[in-house]
Amino acid sequence: MSENKRNLEVNVDLAKERLKCNFSIKEVTNIFDGGEEKTIERKKIEDIALNNGGWRDDIPEECMAPKEKYENAIRKSCIYSNIVKDKIITLDGIESLGLNSPALRRTADAFFKDMSPFLLHMGMFVPTIMGQCTPEQQMRWLPKALNLQIIGTYAQTELGHGTFIRGLETTATYDPETEEFVLHSPTLTSYKWWGGGLGKTVNHCIVVAQLYTKGECHGVHTFVVQIRDLETHMPLPGIKVGDIGPKMGFNTVDNGFLGFNEYRIPRDNMMMKNAQVLKDGTYVKVTRHGKLTYGTMVFVRVMLVSEVAFNLAKAVTIAVRYSAVRRQCERKPGDPEPQILDYITQQHKLFICIATAHALQLTSDWLWRSFSAVLAKMKTGNTDTLPEFHALSSCLKAISTSDSAAYIEQCRLACGGHGYMMSSNLPFLYSFVTATRTYEGDYTVLLLQTARKLSTCVASIRRRVDSGMSFEDAWEHSGVQLVQAAEAHCRAVICEIYYKEIVRLTASSSPNVKIVLNQLTSLYLMHWALERTGDLLRYSSVSEVDLVALQQKYEELLLLIRPNAVGLVDAFDLRDEILNSTLGSYDGQVYERLMAEALKSPLNEEPVNQSFHKYVKPLMHGKL
Amino acid sequence: MSENKRNLEVNVDLAKERLKCNFSIKEVTNIFDGGEEKTIERKKIEDIALNNGGWRDDIPEECMAPKEKYENAIRKSCIYSNIVKDKIITLDGIESLGLNSPALRRTADAFFKDMSPFLLHMGMFVPTIMGQCTPEQQMRWLPKALNLQIIGTYAQTELGHGTFIRGLETTATYDPETEEFVLHSPTLTSYKWWGGGLGKTVNHCIVVAQLYTKGECHGVHTFVVQIRDLETHMPLPGIKVGDIGPKMGFNTVDNGFLGFNEYRIPRDNMMMKNAQVLKDGTYVKVTRHGKLTYGTMVFVRVMLVSEVAFNLAKAVTIAVRYSAVRRQCERKPGDPEPQILDYITQQHKLFICIATAHALQLTSDWLWRSFSAVLAKMKTGNTDTLPEFHALSSCLKAISTSDSAAYIEQCRLACGGHGYMMSSNLPFLYSFVTATRTYEGDYTVLLLQTARKLSTCVASIRRRVDSGMSFEDAWEHSGVQLVQAAEAHCRAVICEIYYKEIVRLTASSSPNVKIVLNQLTSLYLMHWALERTGDLLRYSSVSEVDLVALQQKYEELLLLIRPNAVGLVDAFDLRDEILNSTLGSYDGQVYERLMAEALKSPLNEEPVNQSFHKYVKPLMHGKL
Repeated sequence: MSENKRNLEVNVDLAKERLKCNFSIKEVTNIFDGGEEKTIERKKIEDIALNNGGWRDDIPEECMAPKEKYENAIRKSCIYSNIVKDKIITLDGIESLGLNSPALRRTADAFFKDMSPFLLHMGMFVPTIMGQCTPEQQMRWLPKALNLQIIGTYAQTELGHGTFIRGLETTATYDPETEEFVLHSPTLTSYKWWGGGLGKTVNHCIVVAQLYTKGECHGVHTFVVQIRDLETHMPLPGIKVGDIGPKMGFNTVDNGFLGFNEYRIPRDNMMMKNAQVLKDGTYVKVTRHGKLTYGTMVFVRVMLVSEVAFNLAKAVTIAVRYSAVRRQCERKPGDPEPQILDYITQQHKLFICIATAHALQLTSDWLWRSFSAVLAKMKTGNTDTLPEFHALSSCLKAISTSDSAAYIEQCRLACGGHGYMMSSNLPFLYSFVTATRTYEGDYTVLLLQTARKLSTCVASIRRRVDSGMSFEDAWEHSGVQLVQAAEAHCRAVICEIYYKEIVRLTASSSPNVKIVLNQLTSLYLMHWALERTGDLLRYSSVSEVDLVALQQKYEELLLLIRPNAVGLVDAFDLRDEILNSTLGSYDGQVYERLMAEALKSPLNEEPVNQSFHKYVKPLMHGKL
Repeated sequence: MSENKRNLEVNVDLAKERLKCNFSIKEVTNIFDGGEEKTIERKKIEDIALNNGGWRDDIPEECMAPKEKYENAIRKSCIYSNIVKDKIITLDGIESLGLNSPALRRTADAFFKDMSPFLLHMGMFVPTIMGQCTPEQQMRWLPKALNLQIIGTYAQTELGHGTFIRGLETTATYDPETEEFVLHSPTLTSYKWWGGGLGKTVNHCIVVAQLYTKGECHGVHTFVVQIRDLETHMPLPGIKVGDIGPKMGFNTVDNGFLGFNEYRIPRDNMMMKNAQVLKDGTYVKVTRHGKLTYGTMVFVRVMLVSEVAFNLAKAVTIAVRYSAVRRQCERKPGDPEPQILDYITQQHKLFICIATAHALQLTSDWLWRSFSAVLAKMKTGNTDTLPEFHALSSCLKAISTSDSAAYIEQCRLACGGHGYMMSSNLPFLYSFVTATRTYEGDYTVLLLQTARKLSTCVASIRRRVDSGMSFEDAWEHSGVQLVQAAEAHCRAVICEIYYKEIVRLTASSSPNVKIVLNQLTSLYLMHWALERTGDLLRYSSVSEVDLVALQQKYEELLLLIRPNAVGLVDAFDLRDEILNSTLGSYDGQVYERLMAEALKSPLNEEPVNQSFHKYVKPLMHGKL
């Protein structure tokens, strides 16, 4: 324990694992970064953001109350914003950093551990202004927003409605007398709920509301709304705003509620790119493509796929390194305790996670390129591929968030009791990623959307329609099978993209890189075949004999991948600040770090807690 | 929002659901309580414990820092201990309350929301003294322990060893000169880790250590060790003790670490029922049955099965009630938004949870009766059935904790975004129950133990042995399939017990109770058949045609159960204090409660948080 503070050497088992690795780790890192130059650029940005120490917390964040967590996150958000503004986006020779920049994601994750209350400012407020405002409106808000003179978020979901946007209850009624919209929350269920940073941080907000003009409702539209005074930060009259309280994760962010009491905003605070209300109250649709407003939603879904793949990479890095350090049990009496990574059951749990992190990252890169193509076409007015792309992004979002959450939890459970420690970072990664399964489109709802695009279940549905059911009822009664069919479709898409991308990306790789990356691809395909033996036997020509052979091949693959396991997670190239884990650090000094972190618990500041004198001692003496 | 404080009426949709219910809720409650008298007794105890208000927190516990949570839990533990001691165990006409008393579990859950730091005192310290001490030793410690004059816990797991008890490193070396044992922690990894209440609360501790005497190691034995001064509560010289820091759950409990520096205890602090060290250092085994020391472990596992079943009942009560209140989407344009409980995908997610809560509770009751029989036999020296029972309790513990955690999470996800709110209580229930998958025997390890008892995989293993592998290696390489086989075996056991117990318990029930409970049993059997279609096609005579019919039957069952869904969860008879959920309360006033709870967030105490003036405003003005 006296060693806590000194620079720790690498754990001997982990060092041996690295000697065993037979492929070039750097080469694999470059492949997933998108080339050697990208790796160099990323590392440069990581150095700038993380070498300054602004990300350090006085006490571990998980020892704080939610209010303190929030205040600490505001402090760090302001430091981080300045670093990005002054030192990163001004870097020479660096390509412009998009909102989906892996380098920024990595540094932000290391900085905040959890999330920044400013996240939706750059993540939703700015992109929505870019996407749904006229050029004049962009001139009005964008410079201030980019310069952080105004800080905003996005408020769509209400207490009573999330999935069904058409059911939102907040109203924006146009008053031609004053040329203003009157925002109103007619019911408790119409209160906005969830907006990140909405509770205490932002002064502006994009509000989605039912537009009424000339007595007619034109459905949901977006409005830019100032909700707090820029000098005093007090909520403006007619605004009821606050924090929604603690959540499973995201507790550094003040997700908020927002209600309007006949709150007035100028007419031109309506985002007018796709539809307008003229001074006299006439409603004019500018574009024919109502679907264009889904752009932000699709953008966020595409980002989420890479986000969850990245978090899965963190979890499996932690779990694999810990499994190389941890020794437990005896196989034969008297033998030394093996590394738990040597158990095939552990390999079965972890190697699929490495493969999935690869599969999802490559799928997300592919998705990103495809989406860029869709955006380019949209600019020329061609939105033909948008519906198809929307369906694809829906199911990929559903499957990737659900698989990542499940596999992160599998990594945590594979670390036994120590995985339950907050200092392992695994519980946080799960609580963070499981949220993505729900927001921006619930798992089941998205898969049902995908199913609408598919025809595989038609026979099932047809039987019900033929027996006299309406199509809607038949659809509803087939829901369980439709979700399963959509899931199977999406897995097939991921398998195909993963396989093709690995072939393409390793075309000129060194032989051992090619071998190990292909082993992981095979593992992924076999794993899902073995998870779905019932489907294979029912709907394919695969036989029972094939399955026995497949199981054997799968188990052989685990053994082949085993010596390269630590090398493979090292190739994710995640700095200790990003992993933020006692179990996963590069040096593998697991037990020293667990103890060092425990000693930071505020309960350890004093040998005897005050509650002993106040309650326990009187109880022991029968005097309470 | 002005209605937050007044007594809320029952939500109209929920009231309608209760009118739809066609069976006697009270009758079902009585069945699962074990008879009408048991229900009356339980409600009486709930009234005594919960009507006093001592369980109330000043601010919601999830708004506190871990240290405050701990101090608050100590306050409540002391109040609760007094209530139990003075008002509950003294009740006239009440059967003695065992440690597995459902009434005490319910009231404790309502009282603590999370856990009491005293939990392991009554849960492990006292039972281990009862089980492993001589009568003289029991006289020495039991009266004080039962009277809370000393408070203890159980310290077995170390930083470096959990599963493999033989690998524990803490030593207890007998010194015949002074007739003392010298406890020592030779390495960092030998520090005790996890003991509940160990960090700050307890003054005594049962320590599991390697016993050395006359230069020989006799394996792990248990010792009663005082670690803190009874008056000052200061750790005694030679003791290093503290809190291990925040965890995924159990944050009201000070799980602790403990290290010894040549710490001396009297010889007769060794628990001497099963083995003794004489004054001169001679080691004497008193019983031939080394397995007897596993008694406490089996006892805890049996308790855990009912514990997780109970928590699953809470989760599904919350999710079903919320699903009856929540309305979302349109099926046909213009139709009113349906209750989400009307979606077959939602029924598919939730009804299996009701069935599983029943199945596990009945299995646990059955297990409890069987275990009592084993204990009775053990008293006569007959331990023949202990190994078999140990194996069975292992796999039932593994499957029930794993299924319960997965289904609780399914309930949470079925509640969409609101399920992510801490105030729903669903995140807490998950973090609490998922821990049970790991402690007192890891899922995979326990199933591998079960597999050793099974012969179904013999052919698989034999192939490997025949090809020249050692048995140990063949066993290891077959790990993945062995776990699957053990899981299948255990599911078959649960299905059988569930089915038989329902037949037995509903023999004299009214017709509709019989029908609905049998529908759930059928649902459970069909659900698992459909989850394992691959196994059925490969290893049984079930055909593809059968599976199509089964799927259809399953979907029909969901529709049949639908009108009784709210009645079924009402029958768990869980008071609002026990559910502790904005989404699950009996009145279904979901949105009012969500808002009322949000307003309690300390961030809402002031309109502008201090961090605005300190950081955000300077940032906005470019002056940070």
